[in-house]
Amino acid sequence: MKPINVGLLGIGTVGGGTFEVLRRNEEEITRRAGRPIRISVIADKNVEHARSVAGDSVRITDDAFAVIADPDVDIVVELIGGYGVARELMLGAIANGKHVVTANKALLAMHGNEIFEAARRKGVMVAFEAAVAGGIPIIKALREGLSANRIEWFAGIINGTTNFILSEMRDKGLAFADVLLEAQMLGYAEADPTFDIEGVDAAHKATIMSAIAFGIPMQFGAAHVEGISNLQSIDIAYAGQLGYRIKLLGIARRRPEGVELRVHPTLIPKDRLLANVEGPMNAILVHGDAVGPTMYYGPGAGAEPTASAVIADLVDVTRLHTADPEHRVPHLAFQSDQVLDVKVLPIEDVVTSYYLRLRVDDKPGVLAEITRILADSNISIEAMIQRQAEEGESRTDIIMLTHRTLERNANAALRQIEALDVVRGDITKLRMESLQ
Amino acid sequence: MKPINVGLLGIGTVGGGTFEVLRRNEEEITRRAGRPIRISVIADKNVEHARSVAGDSVRITDDAFAVIADPDVDIVVELIGGYGVARELMLGAIANGKHVVTANKALLAMHGNEIFEAARRKGVMVAFEAAVAGGIPIIKALREGLSANRIEWFAGIINGTTNFILSEMRDKGLAFADVLLEAQMLGYAEADPTFDIEGVDAAHKATIMSAIAFGIPMQFGAAHVEGISNLQSIDIAYAGQLGYRIKLLGIARRRPEGVELRVHPTLIPKDRLLANVEGPMNAILVHGDAVGPTMYYGPGAGAEPTASAVIADLVDVTRLHTADPEHRVPHLAFQSDQVLDVKVLPIEDVVTSYYLRLRVDDKPGVLAEITRILADSNISIEAMIQRQAEEGESRTDIIMLTHRTLERNANAALRQIEALDVVRGDITKLRMESLQ
Repeated sequence: MKPINVGLLGIGTVGGGTFEVLRRNEEEITRRAGRPIRISVIADKNVEHARSVAGDSVRITDDAFAVIADPDVDIVVELIGGYGVARELMLGAIANGKHVVTANKALLAMHGNEIFEAARRKGVMVAFEAAVAGGIPIIKALREGLSANRIEWFAGIINGTTNFILSEMRDKGLAFADVLLEAQMLGYAEADPTFDIEGVDAAHKATIMSAIAFGIPMQFGAAHVEGISNLQSIDIAYAGQLGYRIKLLGIARRRPEGVELRVHPTLIPKDRLLANVEGPMNAILVHGDAVGPTMYYGPGAGAEPTASAVIADLVDVTRLHTADPEHRVPHLAFQSDQVLDVKVLPIEDVVTSYYLRLRVDDKPGVLAEITRILADSNISIEAMIQRQAEEGESRTDIIMLTHRTLERNANAALRQIEALDVVRGDITKLRMESLQ
Repeated sequence: MKPINVGLLGIGTVGGGTFEVLRRNEEEITRRAGRPIRISVIADKNVEHARSVAGDSVRITDDAFAVIADPDVDIVVELIGGYGVARELMLGAIANGKHVVTANKALLAMHGNEIFEAARRKGVMVAFEAAVAGGIPIIKALREGLSANRIEWFAGIINGTTNFILSEMRDKGLAFADVLLEAQMLGYAEADPTFDIEGVDAAHKATIMSAIAFGIPMQFGAAHVEGISNLQSIDIAYAGQLGYRIKLLGIARRRPEGVELRVHPTLIPKDRLLANVEGPMNAILVHGDAVGPTMYYGPGAGAEPTASAVIADLVDVTRLHTADPEHRVPHLAFQSDQVLDVKVLPIEDVVTSYYLRLRVDDKPGVLAEITRILADSNISIEAMIQRQAEEGESRTDIIMLTHRTLERNANAALRQIEALDVVRGDITKLRMESLQ
């Protein structure tokens, strides 16, 4: 059967992996797809590098706009990244009637509503399994595998860099900055790690998943985003003593009032599977009303894992590209006229429980004052440790785990506690989830 | 849009769950599928029971053959089970041009080749996500999510009954028979638990997965099937001391000579995620050449989890039932003319490592005799415990973990060891996998 022709935009890490896996597994992939999938043209600013990866058998150009206009190209694979020229190229490819496969989470989280609407009007597919959690087929699971369910919430380790850093901080008792350097040397963190360590990358992915899980528009701007750069080793240690591990989670939850969408370091009980996902691995726990909990685990980044997702999308698109659009799975799981305008709630409207660490004067009555404020705010305490002050020390730490409460309520109580004379400095507050 | 009409055969546990979830989540499912999915007729031998579950709004009959011939039925959902009348009904539905959704693992593992060939000739779909691992969308993951990969192996906890029993035996130190009774009282094991505890159910599921993973025919008859009814608590305890847990795994692995397909109790390192899947939960670890390891976790049985899979298939079939067959995913992942006739290897050709427990006389030289035989057979030892004989005891236990070797080779060495005067009774041999 006639091969399907792919125009590849960008042959960096993932592009190179895609090229290599398509070549190595050509026979296996053709046996599944029913026809060969062939990269017929590659666009990259660095033509020489592209040539060194792809050899002489493929046409190479530095003009990506020529590729999206090429009448011989059936599917455009966009692996350039970012939301500048990538956006122009993706909208241009769609306008030219090309199907698009992309790994670009930032672009979809920021401009997904515009892109999917353009694709719908033009009757082309935009596939993006590679945009979330690398090689884990989580988009397919949420969109198709769990289609019977009212999805209630998900919580995922969806950034490998930060999960690696947190595993190392815990195992070796090191500070954030030291482990970040190690991660950069090992290639788990980029030279500019901001998007990863500040939670932005995880928020892009959580935004995309929330749209598919709940049938709502992409609302990246409304997500609460908190990274791990301020996380102290001491809190990882105290959490461990209390039976918890700290993970950077992307969480979304349906509530009657709206949707919670948040990324932040989170204490989770250490016997949960998710707490045992270590190093650069990813995992997403999804709760549906019929199925209950399901979890999806695997490598969240890397050349070939991400290529695995890109090519799975290529096989899907190959199968359906000549089919009537009504036979295709809707881009965002729900029919486009069935997307509900449900709003993301501000972080103060989130309901969760908390880990609190307070630096206090080591004298009688301190705990009574603090617990009275919490009690007056209807915040109950689940567990507490007070570190024994060492000899000559006039201050000590109190660590408390609270039951669930509204974040606004917790914040008001903490402001009152911070105003006490006996409480020194700011209170460390981390959110906690039981995942049940 | 016009609803799609479903004829439901059998309204027991899973049928009842399917009816309930379709009703409860009607709006959500319609938003995804683009049209309502409606159970228009139910066949069950017990008409009164069916009426009590489904109410008066649905037509009910005791004649399943009338349902598969009903011109108003678009999709037949077969939830009768077994391979007697269910096979006739499924082949009949296909002959009548109906699409079929089923949870019947036994039927597919035994007669899948015939059924899928009939469906291919007639141009209808047979969907079976619910046949393997309940609500976990593992069929979709293997067939579509990992389509870029040469799948190398999988290992799964795919029977909840036995996993529950093994968790309880370990946690409470109880014997198999006692925990089986408890499982029956809790509803985790059936009155006749043979298919579960002897590994047959897991072998059905592993057979189906092996066909999809490797593009080979169903070869249930060639699978090696071993259950947990002979497993001793003492071996669970010794395994724990050595850092392992024992799980009943369904394993398939591609080898140059053929395919390994086997179900047996297996020692796995206790820090693996799979080792921490407890109670009636299921999980499947899959290794693809591009993606590396991915794992899929969730409830492997139960009314609504299984219904979740049945309905996901209904949504898929609804979307594609009027599409040209070339636009559909092949039933068994690979195009039907691309299924390779690769044979399942006999168990003696399997390569794995072993846990061995020997009852020996407590006197000098015993260990030397045993280790000499292993060394002569090129079997190297990874770890060993010798239990200290208690006062007055003349015998003791030796527990050994070996490195990987051919099963035929291991068996020959064990026969020699069993022939030694100092070795009492049969050697306990359990297989062990590192899952890496």
